[in-house]
Amino acid sequence: MTRILGIDPGSIRTGYGIIEVSGTTRFTCVAHGHIPTRGKDTSQRLLQIHHALIEVIQSYQPGEAAIEQVFLKNNPQTALKLGQARGAALVAAAGYALPVAEYSPRKIKQSVVGYGAAAKTQVQQMIRTLLKMPEAPQADAADALAIALCHCYHRQFSLKIAECV
Amino acid sequence: MTRILGIDPGSIRTGYGIIEVSGTTRFTCVAHGHIPTRGKDTSQRLLQIHHALIEVIQSYQPGEAAIEQVFLKNNPQTALKLGQARGAALVAAAGYALPVAEYSPRKIKQSVVGYGAAAKTQVQQMIRTLLKMPEAPQADAADALAIALCHCYHRQFSLKIAECV
Repeated sequence: MTRILGIDPGSIRTGYGIIEVSGTTRFTCVAHGHIPTRGKDTSQRLLQIHHALIEVIQSYQPGEAAIEQVFLKNNPQTALKLGQARGAALVAAAGYALPVAEYSPRKIKQSVVGYGAAAKTQVQQMIRTLLKMPEAPQADAADALAIALCHCYHRQFSLKIAECV
Repeated sequence: MTRILGIDPGSIRTGYGIIEVSGTTRFTCVAHGHIPTRGKDTSQRLLQIHHALIEVIQSYQPGEAAIEQVFLKNNPQTALKLGQARGAALVAAAGYALPVAEYSPRKIKQSVVGYGAAAKTQVQQMIRTLLKMPEAPQADAADALAIALCHCYHRQFSLKIAECV
């Protein structure tokens, strides 16, 4: 049994999701949510992301983490802000020795919805169905669960390959 | 007596410098250096920046911090990497409740060299002269000391304004 932490960092809201892997095909959502940041001070906002993720890691003890790869074509200022949020999140995961896998947005959507250009609402609905949740999670939390689920699939695949060799 | 921490974050090397302010015009360099990051794993490299800065803060007990404002016109991928390093550094400062001031590169160079478009070597030589150092510091450390010194000047000015009112 392993728990995977999916993280969807953002300067305004950071989504997180914990999925438990039992056997080879059973995936359960253990926790999910989003961390809103408050105040005008950037370093304090980053600290809120960092501390909240540490609390999630301490509470649910994941063994691995996954994050979305970012490809931005425009707006370096947006990239800088997103980078800062990612930095605060990645330091939290690395501080607990969690290996962090990265997946492209296309791969995440393909893994979860079956279609690389799926809309946010489709991701929310598919996450609800796949993880048998009573209702669709909030958008940032759904993205984080999708990242975690994508890692579950690819991690399982890697493990099966390793068994066959 | 107050100590100011200047930080020049980068994904490959992060410069730092500590300046001690005594009275209104005496500035002394207490420590300076650069933190090289090693390995291919991004989150581990960010953790190296974060831990090394925490060590600097614990050793020299600064009361305030300063960082360079970033204005990038091109290359969002560079902005993302720089943002991640800034995030790791800012979380370290915020974790010790240091208020973090930001200054534009032009303001920093104007404050230290008297010319907003000064070259890196000019900054290194002026830092050596102003802080009466035996030799010019390494480029990233010099930039960090320049950021700290810029904050010393503007902070002094703000304090004087406050006294006059």
